[in-house]
Amino acid sequence: MVTKQQIVEFLAAEFPQTKCSVESVGEGSSVIRHKITVEELRPGGTVAGPVLMTVADVALYVALFRKIGIVPLAVTTNLTVNFLRKPAPEKDILGVCKLIKVGKTLAVGEVLLYSEGNENPVAHAVGTYSIPAARQPEQSSPNLGSSSTDDKPRLGVHLGGHS
Amino acid sequence: MVTKQQIVEFLAAEFPQTKCSVESVGEGSSVIRHKITVEELRPGGTVAGPVLMTVADVALYVALFRKIGIVPLAVTTNLTVNFLRKPAPEKDILGVCKLIKVGKTLAVGEVLLYSEGNENPVAHAVGTYSIPAARQPEQSSPNLGSSSTDDKPRLGVHLGGHS
Amino acid sequence: MVTKQQIVEFLAAEFPQTKCSVESVGEGSSVIRHKITVEELRPGGTVAGPVLMTVADVALYVALFRKIGIVPLAVTTNLTVNFLRKPAPEKDILGVCKLIKVGKTLAVGEVLLYSEGNENPVAHAVGTYSIPAARQPEQSSPNLGSSSTDDKPRLGVHLGGHS
Amino acid sequence: MVTKQQIVEFLAAEFPQTKCSVESVGEGSSVIRHKITVEELRPGGTVAGPVLMTVADVALYVALFRKIGIVPLAVTTNLTVNFLRKPAPEKDILGVCKLIKVGKTLAVGEVLLYSEGNENPVAHAVGTYSIPAARQPEQSSPNLGSSSTDDKPRLGVHLGGHS
Repeated sequence: MVTKQQIVEFLAAEFPQTKCSVESVGEGSSVIRHKITVEELRPGGTVAGPVLMTVADVALYVALFRKIGIVPLAVTTNLTVNFLRKPAPEKDILGVCKLIKVGKTLAVGEVLLYSEGNENPVAHAVGTYSIPAARQPEQSSPNLGSSSTDDKPRLGVHLGGHS
Repeated sequence: MVTKQQIVEFLAAEFPQTKCSVESVGEGSSVIRHKITVEELRPGGTVAGPVLMTVADVALYVALFRKIGIVPLAVTTNLTVNFLRKPAPEKDILGVCKLIKVGKTLAVGEVLLYSEGNENPVAHAVGTYSIPAARQPEQSSPNLGSSSTDDKPRLGVHLGGHS
Repeated sequence: MVTKQQIVEFLAAEFPQTKCSVESVGEGSSVIRHKITVEELRPGGTVAGPVLMTVADVALYVALFRKIGIVPLAVTTNLTVNFLRKPAPEKDILGVCKLIKVGKTLAVGEVLLYSEGNENPVAHAVGTYSIPAARQPEQSSPNLGSSSTDDKPRLGVHLGGHS
Repeated sequence: MVTKQQIVEFLAAEFPQTKCSVESVGEGSSVIRHKITVEELRPGGTVAGPVLMTVADVALYVALFRKIGIVPLAVTTNLTVNFLRKPAPEKDILGVCKLIKVGKTLAVGEVLLYSEGNENPVAHAVGTYSIPAARQPEQSSPNLGSSSTDDKPRLGVHLGGHS
């Protein structure tokens, strides 16, 4: 099983610019922290919506890695966010992710987002990750793998590369 | 009717840090451009998902302003994004928004997101904005206004205040 | 507080045709059962997707009633469903709803859907209900109320009238 | 290319109970009609939300068939619906679908839903269909195929069978 330390090292190597850090990982779960500085704030004193979406995306990614191994090519295909309350401007954002299903090709999970210290979530997200066939050694071949890369969505926090 | 110039000035004043610019506005529509620099890229050479979500959010906001006037307190309550293709790393992102419904309290619109120069969208978003009652003069009162601020979601690109 | 019995009677009176029954209600939660007969099945031996969506919608509706009282005019404005596994054809569907936020004008909740007896959910739904201003006596007026009915969405399991 | 007639015959054979009929199919598009009888109505005189979701699902299914051939095992994995206006009780529902992307494993499309004769949509849906690998002869094998059926979502209007 992938350890928290391995995931932390992967993110540090591949996403050196991220402001997200891994608080904890569990069986099908993760907690991600995003430091809030003046850069993340909007004039009215609240955290920008895209910051919350970033945390949701990273939390899903990390929880999935814990479950299936580090698969940089896993990509977000769908993300639905409901914004619930105004986040506090001076508090870090915490994303608490729980995977709902991890299948062969798709994984679905949800993330509750909090301003640290307040038990009422500021947002709820549910997202789908597409897991590339390449992680299943018995199915993959160099040709199939490279042709399918032109066809698949490549977004979210994924790297879209290495192969 | 609010002009493009008024919206541009509003964004410049209230969101000085945004990398989104207004290409055009129409009746219930808008086109938003987001410059892509190395900061928006992921290691594998693609644009980060949250950049696309930001463009979708701003495009909805701007199209709504054109329709109902500049309402800084309008807030995103729901955003669903489907990621379709890998965006080109060297191209700006364009968000083309069309409002589907503008009601008294809720507005719904969709946004197609493109890498400039490619006619196949890289993502599709549909979002809901909550329009504060305060814009309806006959319903608002200072007391109602301030009490409702504790209850309403306050995310997206909204300002959460100032008015 | 509204009792389970009151909600059951309301549904029986207003939705006599529904195949959903209330298993339990709690503080911001509900469990709904949908009998599965041959009418709900698809040829390949699985429960039709819209049956799952119906259960999700009713579960949100009932959980909301428990929280804010019976408000027939509350209407679904957004429903996002992720389909996870093939439901068993011979098992009832159970929908387990938990409200995430109940605000003045919007409520958001999620529903896990199960084939009875299997702990792995067959689908996950997250939905938003719009709560009509009419339930807040100090804000409503006959004129406002009737004009807003032309503007607001009227779907889901709501009645769209009678009150 | 699959003709409208072939799709009509497929639906008649496999979904004899459906109230949806195919109005037209085009390149990546479809129009579906759902007859509205008293059975589809709610007490307040409006069409039930799940009816709209059914039409959206069928419209996506049919548009996809036109594009990739009749693939009964294609299954809805995600459906997001925004409810916009109260449908007229005496009018059929029309669903107008446009596919946004058809990839190797996932297809995404949107559906605008109308009460016939009114140009303002009553709902907007966006959905994702998972396309089984089995349609790609070079990748499938009896073993892989049958094992994957336990893992994949099987909902929407799909048949979940035949193989």
